[in-house]
Amino acid sequence: MGHKEHKKHRYSLNVGVITVSSTRDRENDVSGAILKDKITGHGHSVCGYEVVKDDKLEILSALFNMLKSCDAVIVNGGTGISRKDVTYDSVVSVFDKELVGFGELFRLKSYEEIGTPAMMSRATAGVVAGKIVFLTPGSPGAVCTASELIFAEIEHMWYELHKEKGTI
Amino acid sequence: MGHKEHKKHRYSLNVGVITVSSTRDRENDVSGAILKDKITGHGHSVCGYEVVKDDKLEILSALFNMLKSCDAVIVNGGTGISRKDVTYDSVVSVFDKELVGFGELFRLKSYEEIGTPAMMSRATAGVVAGKIVFLTPGSPGAVCTASELIFAEIEHMWYELHKEKGTI
Amino acid sequence: MGHKEHKKHRYSLNVGVITVSSTRDRENDVSGAILKDKITGHGHSVCGYEVVKDDKLEILSALFNMLKSCDAVIVNGGTGISRKDVTYDSVVSVFDKELVGFGELFRLKSYEEIGTPAMMSRATAGVVAGKIVFLTPGSPGAVCTASELIFAEIEHMWYELHKEKGTI
Amino acid sequence: MGHKEHKKHRYSLNVGVITVSSTRDRENDVSGAILKDKITGHGHSVCGYEVVKDDKLEILSALFNMLKSCDAVIVNGGTGISRKDVTYDSVVSVFDKELVGFGELFRLKSYEEIGTPAMMSRATAGVVAGKIVFLTPGSPGAVCTASELIFAEIEHMWYELHKEKGTI
Amino acid sequence: MGHKEHKKHRYSLNVGVITVSSTRDRENDVSGAILKDKITGHGHSVCGYEVVKDDKLEILSALFNMLKSCDAVIVNGGTGISRKDVTYDSVVSVFDKELVGFGELFRLKSYEEIGTPAMMSRATAGVVAGKIVFLTPGSPGAVCTASELIFAEIEHMWYELHKEKGTI
Amino acid sequence: MGHKEHKKHRYSLNVGVITVSSTRDRENDVSGAILKDKITGHGHSVCGYEVVKDDKLEILSALFNMLKSCDAVIVNGGTGISRKDVTYDSVVSVFDKELVGFGELFRLKSYEEIGTPAMMSRATAGVVAGKIVFLTPGSPGAVCTASELIFAEIEHMWYELHKEKGTI
Repeated sequence: MGHKEHKKHRYSLNVGVITVSSTRDRENDVSGAILKDKITGHGHSVCGYEVVKDDKLEILSALFNMLKSCDAVIVNGGTGISRKDVTYDSVVSVFDKELVGFGELFRLKSYEEIGTPAMMSRATAGVVAGKIVFLTPGSPGAVCTASELIFAEIEHMWYELHKEKGTI
Repeated sequence: MGHKEHKKHRYSLNVGVITVSSTRDRENDVSGAILKDKITGHGHSVCGYEVVKDDKLEILSALFNMLKSCDAVIVNGGTGISRKDVTYDSVVSVFDKELVGFGELFRLKSYEEIGTPAMMSRATAGVVAGKIVFLTPGSPGAVCTASELIFAEIEHMWYELHKEKGTI
Repeated sequence: MGHKEHKKHRYSLNVGVITVSSTRDRENDVSGAILKDKITGHGHSVCGYEVVKDDKLEILSALFNMLKSCDAVIVNGGTGISRKDVTYDSVVSVFDKELVGFGELFRLKSYEEIGTPAMMSRATAGVVAGKIVFLTPGSPGAVCTASELIFAEIEHMWYELHKEKGTI
Repeated sequence: MGHKEHKKHRYSLNVGVITVSSTRDRENDVSGAILKDKITGHGHSVCGYEVVKDDKLEILSALFNMLKSCDAVIVNGGTGISRKDVTYDSVVSVFDKELVGFGELFRLKSYEEIGTPAMMSRATAGVVAGKIVFLTPGSPGAVCTASELIFAEIEHMWYELHKEKGTI
Repeated sequence: MGHKEHKKHRYSLNVGVITVSSTRDRENDVSGAILKDKITGHGHSVCGYEVVKDDKLEILSALFNMLKSCDAVIVNGGTGISRKDVTYDSVVSVFDKELVGFGELFRLKSYEEIGTPAMMSRATAGVVAGKIVFLTPGSPGAVCTASELIFAEIEHMWYELHKEKGTI
Repeated sequence: MGHKEHKKHRYSLNVGVITVSSTRDRENDVSGAILKDKITGHGHSVCGYEVVKDDKLEILSALFNMLKSCDAVIVNGGTGISRKDVTYDSVVSVFDKELVGFGELFRLKSYEEIGTPAMMSRATAGVVAGKIVFLTPGSPGAVCTASELIFAEIEHMWYELHKEKGTI
């Protein structure tokens, strides 16, 4: 894989947003709003948006419904270590391939911004059935940091996942 | 856990059916029809019925949607070893607790009925978010054999899962 | 491994008992008492006895303390599927080698005795640091059934684990 | 999958044998000789035969070399719980799909023949890259028992694995 | 989770130290002494101190005993790749949640200090039953580097783990 | 482990190279050529060189054959996320110990060189049967970056793995 060749390709993708929170709703979900702005701001479309509780069933139901009509889904919230933080544990087990480098780079960036609290996030990314899933913390600062990484590479990732299918 | 005490309890449960098949549809799905008959025949309700392709995304999307409104889901088809048999691999990773005894007993019964081909099934059961999921082969004979085990214990299982919540 | 050769060896082992229960104590722990009787009745010694709550920390602390001075430990209780049943999930991850055949045979015997409820047990056995750990349900009937299997083979297992160390 | 339809197909397969032992060699490997006889006796061909030490590297090297030119490989020896028994631990992690039903049925048959020592075997089977791998104990009795199961279903398994490739 | 809000809280925690080494004892355990000094220097209490051999049983027995009376435990030594380095393999499997960010940040800091040897450490952290466990290399330099990270965030971690229990 | 003590030791190791690619062959394998040059340039010997397809069986067969006569093997290619990228998934499951720090540091270096595409690599390293295996992307730039890390520490790693065997 040459990291440059894909630059000639530009893809407009369908990207969904799932907010996992026990306190936010569709009205006050600042981080969800940021993500939707970032998606359209980078020339993609918001193919779905859901706010769900910290509950494995809610999270996975929303995720798999969204994956049916989206190319990628960004799940924010629930990546910490408290008892209600079940996003990571619910989602990672369904990944076909985990992309640990996303979480590493997110924490590196986050460390430069906020220092040692960065290590408390279990942000990660992975591939499920040819679709891309990102898990990020739920704070506005975190989704901004994550967005920089996600939108720098999401088209490249999509190209990698689909180039052999002959559909692009 | 005393295996007798629950006998005094009878529960009418909401049970869903998912058929995983590349050839069956809602019209010719004999095994799905058998399962629905067994559910109502044992005093329970059919809370959902879907026929999906051998596809991880289709299977998990149908499963998690159904689990939101059902107490248990029986998934039939796709438990073998061929390349299209992805049901087991898609579902087992989301179990909170796997109940290997269901698969063992299913294969024991199946061995008495059909002999050594019994060992080729990856039937199993598990618990996800307090709900019960059964995976069985898709042949009519297999769902009949599985139904005997499932309906002998499904109320007992439900009692075990909910007795501490104080909701029963 | 010839299954007969070890018959010429008889070993008196140190076997511990851990009862996991939210209701039993040392006074009313019938299943614990049965296990201790079975241990001495088969010519072995009871090297430890603890009753602990359904709590991962309590269970693993008792288990590892006991393993330091015992050849084997029988843990009874907490192998079901309810939320308080954490024994299986707490212990299996520390096994160096799991012996699934013990659980299978236990459920086969149990099925002959009590029928389909047998499939609800997650009984199993495994090896940790050269010691043997058995997990059984907590009912008196279950520990009797398990004891038949355990004491039929525990010396054989110990022989297998230690024959290469040159200490027997 | 109908368990009967494949009966009309007969396939002559290439089956390899790997003996894992610290004491046997090609001259005195009775169990290996039995397996080779069974392979040809059932109309298949012996595509490879190796005797290796109880060593992860030796076992996996022999296995992957043989899988390149064989349809299936039977590995005998090293499935117990002693420290030198590394076959199970070395091989299971490379399975794409594990077929736990083979081990269960083997132990059931074995239990009928030798009683409770049956539970000490970690016999199993699995699929790697479209090929079938069986792990059995190394005693002559065990390979005879295993052979009954293996040769009853190996053509059926092969059919299941290859029917969708359009190569049969 | 806002990374700032917890700053208003200060907690004095009970932190234990386990030294895993085949050469150190309580007299010459420099790294253990450093850790105990760091614990008290940051306003916490040393709730336990043990020096154990590179042995799974010793390590887990000491760890679970200490976790019963401590809020957190720092295990130093045995995180490398040599055959005697069993700390990581013994402990990681009991984590309810692994906090890979601690290991990443430790190796990043370590890389700045000692260069590429940093990558040979399998330092990590995790949560077990609501308690925090850190695994660090056993050299004095490594425990100093790790201490900077641990004591910068240990109160924050404890707050995250307990805020929902209503006990703080 | 002191990170300096090994500096007094210099070891000439046997290092193999496996190139995993659907397009490269022995003639045009630039990255393979670079790796072989680096091996000899650092005073080691090339103990094997194979170019194989993106196929689990080919990769593991080449790897285990090479490990029999080499001290370490560098596998390049197939660490991305596309469907043909099977190297990581094929190899990681056979590691006795994974050294995640190699992948982390590789991606950190790579990030400094090429930016965010760095996070798409699943480079890693691990130990199998006392031998060292490195997985790197297949581009010339990536193998150069990886080589800097590998050859800075490979002798140190080998020392760690073998110092207790008394063979050095």
